[in-house]
Amino acid sequence: MKTNERILEQALALFNAHGMGRTSLNRIASELGISSGNLHYHFKTRGHLIARLINRFDCEISPLVGRNIGQIDGIDDFWLHLHLLFEVCLRYRFILRDIDQILSECGDALPRLARIRAGIEARMLECCRQMHRERILIIGQAEIQSLALHLAFVVCCWPTFDMLASADAAGSGPTTAAYQALTLLAPFLAPGQKTYLDYLRNKYLRPQPALVEATA
Amino acid sequence: MKTNERILEQALALFNAHGMGRTSLNRIASELGISSGNLHYHFKTRGHLIARLINRFDCEISPLVGRNIGQIDGIDDFWLHLHLLFEVCLRYRFILRDIDQILSECGDALPRLARIRAGIEARMLECCRQMHRERILIIGQAEIQSLALHLAFVVCCWPTFDMLASADAAGSGPTTAAYQALTLLAPFLAPGQKTYLDYLRNKYLRPQPALVEATA
Repeated sequence: MKTNERILEQALALFNAHGMGRTSLNRIASELGISSGNLHYHFKTRGHLIARLINRFDCEISPLVGRNIGQIDGIDDFWLHLHLLFEVCLRYRFILRDIDQILSECGDALPRLARIRAGIEARMLECCRQMHRERILIIGQAEIQSLALHLAFVVCCWPTFDMLASADAAGSGPTTAAYQALTLLAPFLAPGQKTYLDYLRNKYLRPQPALVEATA
Repeated sequence: MKTNERILEQALALFNAHGMGRTSLNRIASELGISSGNLHYHFKTRGHLIARLINRFDCEISPLVGRNIGQIDGIDDFWLHLHLLFEVCLRYRFILRDIDQILSECGDALPRLARIRAGIEARMLECCRQMHRERILIIGQAEIQSLALHLAFVVCCWPTFDMLASADAAGSGPTTAAYQALTLLAPFLAPGQKTYLDYLRNKYLRPQPALVEATA
């Protein structure tokens, strides 16, 4: 792997694991076993490095948010779409959970991030419309807009919300996040489509009452 | 107002408006027209200042997340609960949209933030259960847990999601956020309860199709 690529991979891992505030260029160089001068040769500032990672996030998510989504015959097909999106968002999760910091170091990142969000929203809307056409969802036009917006919200922000959980409840991956998105569909599912959701519900539903007791 | 309080108010305004990355202690002092030494006398580090703001966030939200919630006779009563929560979360929005940075400067903030999230979740669950008892919502036990979790997610993370919108779509306040939370209830509302939601829907529904065209 080229030094350039190694730096990006190491930075991504450290940003995700420890946050941007605890990941200086010096730390990245030290973890890689290269000199600060060598790193500086490749990336003049941390902002340049972050901009490249946002670029990669955009490139990896782009094929998943185009409008040509293929056939959706059942809720499990939609589950796969969600899962692929979550994998990319989790891979670059530091971007979505530290937006202020991102914008302070890459002043021009906002239009690109807004485009990524809009792409996710458009893909969710297209998926919902196709499930409506295939009679997987029984839903009105106003509800479909609202549902797509909420699904995009889950895709973009669930990892951030997860961070706010207590340590023992944390560590949920793309599967749990995708399950939470899927529960939004439940009220609109045609009767024959609920089997898959029930299967997932039994597998992932958290024991909520304990949480309430803890805060009483 | 005491200097201490003036510093906290100024810091909060700057963190919310420009992010933590662009708000140094020097900038806060300069905006207040006091010396850096004076500010340093009150707060040794930015971490101390942030810890105090998290403390205030906790104190302001605590009365809103206790279990004694009063009577909920209709969806407009629940709307008020949501609105009050959103007002506090928006007032301290820099905390919820820059969690990594917060944790890097206040290493012990996570348990407190997790407790705030758990309190919001418990309040949402209590509201949903009361609306279920009052037959405002027609909903099963598994769905009620899921609904409360998603409502808490909107309260905590919607302002962050909002930041990802393009500039012309931004600037939505607590009303829009509360409306988005309310739409989650729509599929479960008893027939007689839909009037208020429809009133809000007509008032706030965004013209979504334009968004899809922009990303096609």
